[in-house]
Amino acid sequence: MTTISDVHMTPDEFRRAGHAVVDWIARYMEQVEDYPVLAQVEPGAIRARLPEAAPERGEPLEAVLRDLDEVILPGVTHWQSPNFYAYFPANASGPAMLGDLVSSGLGVQGMSWATSPACTELETHLLDWLVDLLALPESFRYTRAGGGVIQDTASSASLCALLAARERATVGRANVEGVTRTLTAYVSNQGHSSVMKGAGIAGIGRDHLRLIDVDDAHAMRPDALERAIVADREAGHTPFFVTATVGTTPSTAMDPLRPIGEICRRHGLWLHVDAALAGTAALCPEFRWIHEGLELADSYCFNPHKWMLTNFDCDAFYVADRAALLDALSILPEYLRTKASESGAVIDYRDWHVPLGRRFRALKLWFVIRHYGVAGLQLHVREHVKLAQEFAAWVEADARFALAAPVPLNLVCFRHVGGDEVNQRLMDELNASGDLYLSHARLDDRLVLRLAIGAPGTRRRHVERAWQRIRETAEAIAGGA
Amino acid sequence: MTTISDVHMTPDEFRRAGHAVVDWIARYMEQVEDYPVLAQVEPGAIRARLPEAAPERGEPLEAVLRDLDEVILPGVTHWQSPNFYAYFPANASGPAMLGDLVSSGLGVQGMSWATSPACTELETHLLDWLVDLLALPESFRYTRAGGGVIQDTASSASLCALLAARERATVGRANVEGVTRTLTAYVSNQGHSSVMKGAGIAGIGRDHLRLIDVDDAHAMRPDALERAIVADREAGHTPFFVTATVGTTPSTAMDPLRPIGEICRRHGLWLHVDAALAGTAALCPEFRWIHEGLELADSYCFNPHKWMLTNFDCDAFYVADRAALLDALSILPEYLRTKASESGAVIDYRDWHVPLGRRFRALKLWFVIRHYGVAGLQLHVREHVKLAQEFAAWVEADARFALAAPVPLNLVCFRHVGGDEVNQRLMDELNASGDLYLSHARLDDRLVLRLAIGAPGTRRRHVERAWQRIRETAEAIAGGA
Repeated sequence: MTTISDVHMTPDEFRRAGHAVVDWIARYMEQVEDYPVLAQVEPGAIRARLPEAAPERGEPLEAVLRDLDEVILPGVTHWQSPNFYAYFPANASGPAMLGDLVSSGLGVQGMSWATSPACTELETHLLDWLVDLLALPESFRYTRAGGGVIQDTASSASLCALLAARERATVGRANVEGVTRTLTAYVSNQGHSSVMKGAGIAGIGRDHLRLIDVDDAHAMRPDALERAIVADREAGHTPFFVTATVGTTPSTAMDPLRPIGEICRRHGLWLHVDAALAGTAALCPEFRWIHEGLELADSYCFNPHKWMLTNFDCDAFYVADRAALLDALSILPEYLRTKASESGAVIDYRDWHVPLGRRFRALKLWFVIRHYGVAGLQLHVREHVKLAQEFAAWVEADARFALAAPVPLNLVCFRHVGGDEVNQRLMDELNASGDLYLSHARLDDRLVLRLAIGAPGTRRRHVERAWQRIRETAEAIAGGA
Repeated sequence: MTTISDVHMTPDEFRRAGHAVVDWIARYMEQVEDYPVLAQVEPGAIRARLPEAAPERGEPLEAVLRDLDEVILPGVTHWQSPNFYAYFPANASGPAMLGDLVSSGLGVQGMSWATSPACTELETHLLDWLVDLLALPESFRYTRAGGGVIQDTASSASLCALLAARERATVGRANVEGVTRTLTAYVSNQGHSSVMKGAGIAGIGRDHLRLIDVDDAHAMRPDALERAIVADREAGHTPFFVTATVGTTPSTAMDPLRPIGEICRRHGLWLHVDAALAGTAALCPEFRWIHEGLELADSYCFNPHKWMLTNFDCDAFYVADRAALLDALSILPEYLRTKASESGAVIDYRDWHVPLGRRFRALKLWFVIRHYGVAGLQLHVREHVKLAQEFAAWVEADARFALAAPVPLNLVCFRHVGGDEVNQRLMDELNASGDLYLSHARLDDRLVLRLAIGAPGTRRRHVERAWQRIRETAEAIAGGA
């Protein structure tokens, strides 16, 4: 008869199975370049290959690994392929994977300091390290009035910023519900969709989010922002929150933080700065201009899980004054009370975000920073920026193509001069070929192609090959059209 | 000179480093029982041992593993120790760790179907498997009008349920903002703090959440619920949402789903059922009574990351009608448009929760179900329920102790008859000893100790030893008092 002791992996069985899985991943790393980047399957194709019923008895690991190859891999779009240029990158790396594996192995919950002190203290320490590494404002340090926390995504960070700002805007007001109904928020019309999603979630209302005009470089126009704030106030609304974007999703446009921050100070609005992709560039002193004026921000986030080699999920979220955030999110039922919490000497990170439970995410960030060192991380950023600049130069030199936006960092927005239809076909055919994967945006009401260089393995030969495939495919389309 | 190719781990380096980390975890699994369960450190002690500055140059893995042993482990509270009885369990297991490692290795984003079809389709398929495994209502299947999705935590699931309910309660109303201000929600006074946190986040207002009285078994009183709904409606409020709890956090009390569900139907309220811990028990037919009446629920969640051997984070969240959830959360900027999404033939899970990005969490659940099989998972649940029942019998047989609540599953709430002060000292001394880790709650205005049996390695000898340590320590306290 099977007993409970027979069903768990023993440490020895885990050793053997773990080595096999590590070897599977190493082989995947070796072969990732050979797969079609975008999964070439129809909707439902993967599901159709899975058994209808869950197994009654346990199966050997070998059967699962075989199905990984035969059933799962054909349905995977390969974000770690050096030929992946779509969206923004989602960096994985060996040290991050292994740091996260240790987190799984320890299996601790860091909701309160006491439930695993190292989980909280390493996180606080690393978030202070990142203040140094990116030369962020001193106000973001926990040793001052602010502090950093790891969130899952910039969407969640954005929501938490909105909630803290809502708290600050309504606390102590005579008619909190009345004031809440009048709140209005601001983001450029190039800002991330998560701001609108957050405004809906927080009950501000999507229609209370104003989408501010941008300039020719797709950056927020401070004059348009201030006019909108003044008009809303005159109409009886309560302007309370601005998101400025450092590196917008469509084109990595850079909203001018200093004039926006000065407007926020003048009118008493909370300034959140979303640098989800671009923040990582500030590892290099030559790119720190992107944060010029950041000391005027009330909150800030960037995603080490995008371009800083730390597997998803890892968004670094900072506030300059943690009191409003804690007022918005803290809650203390009896069963979560601990002596350490009541002493006030510790952080309970559950009060810094939406979820209660939290895993030891700082470990993967720690493994990454220690494996690469600051110098290694800088090399990674510089390589991609250099390749993007080269690609942009090739586009500019070819009369059939045009740049569609400035290229401050590692994203090139470009288009074929033949119009939207040609560009749509170009993207569809390139993606269907499996040779590379691009995504798109609309800028100035034109379809543009986005080539984001950020996968860890992307080197000059990949970008050269991409450019060659783009030109060949365009020629076939335009020639045949 | 160092080049970019020198700084990344090669596949071979990853193989070696990966084997070393797997071996480190296997050793941790062998030794976890020997560590003091609750970390015995003062606030700031771990941080003080970390270097002030991040390293400029990369360091070898061996240095990081040494620091794991010397700096981190002393600050870890060992949730995987067989002597961990606090809160609710947070199960880790070998197969879950390895499934999640594969997810890290693939490093894909599943925000849209197209960005990795297998990530979406495996998740949908497994959530349908869980409908079979727990005998959940057919309405929760994606193949019907509902569907399941993996959320990070029950807190987030609860928030999403609230948002979907808010959407359903306000959509199409003449004065959405006016109606929103009058919304009132309901949960028992034993329900989870996340419901109140969610009401704050969603702008319903914490003071618009009614805490309903419970009966002698700490379960919600349907009559009290209905009276509160009627009174609120008469006062001009708009009752819209009830959370019923299957296994409350203080004492695993079971709210009666059928009468609560009938009240919700009668008055047009959304019923969310939170079975975060207890849901897993429904793997076993003999415990499925806990879900009696669940077919009246609009949404439901349970956490495989608590008691189903699937590492955090993995909350399985279901809705009976996905339309309201999608209406509340979906948003579609140009850069996220894909042909597959527009065809309507696929799921884009980004519209089912707060974050945009999402990792391939279904893999760890798949590894778990295939490794253990349904029969293995059932053994795991039965073992813990049996041990908890035995422990409860020992408590009942000892005149110095009393049970503080019914013991339907694997949580025993008990107290020493000597009063709150004795129980507080008893808990503090036991936890400080490092021999076991308990937590507490207040029930009927008395401090009670909670012994939750759920760590994968907990066997009869551990529970016997815990009972012995509890009695010895109580004797020393009561004898010396």
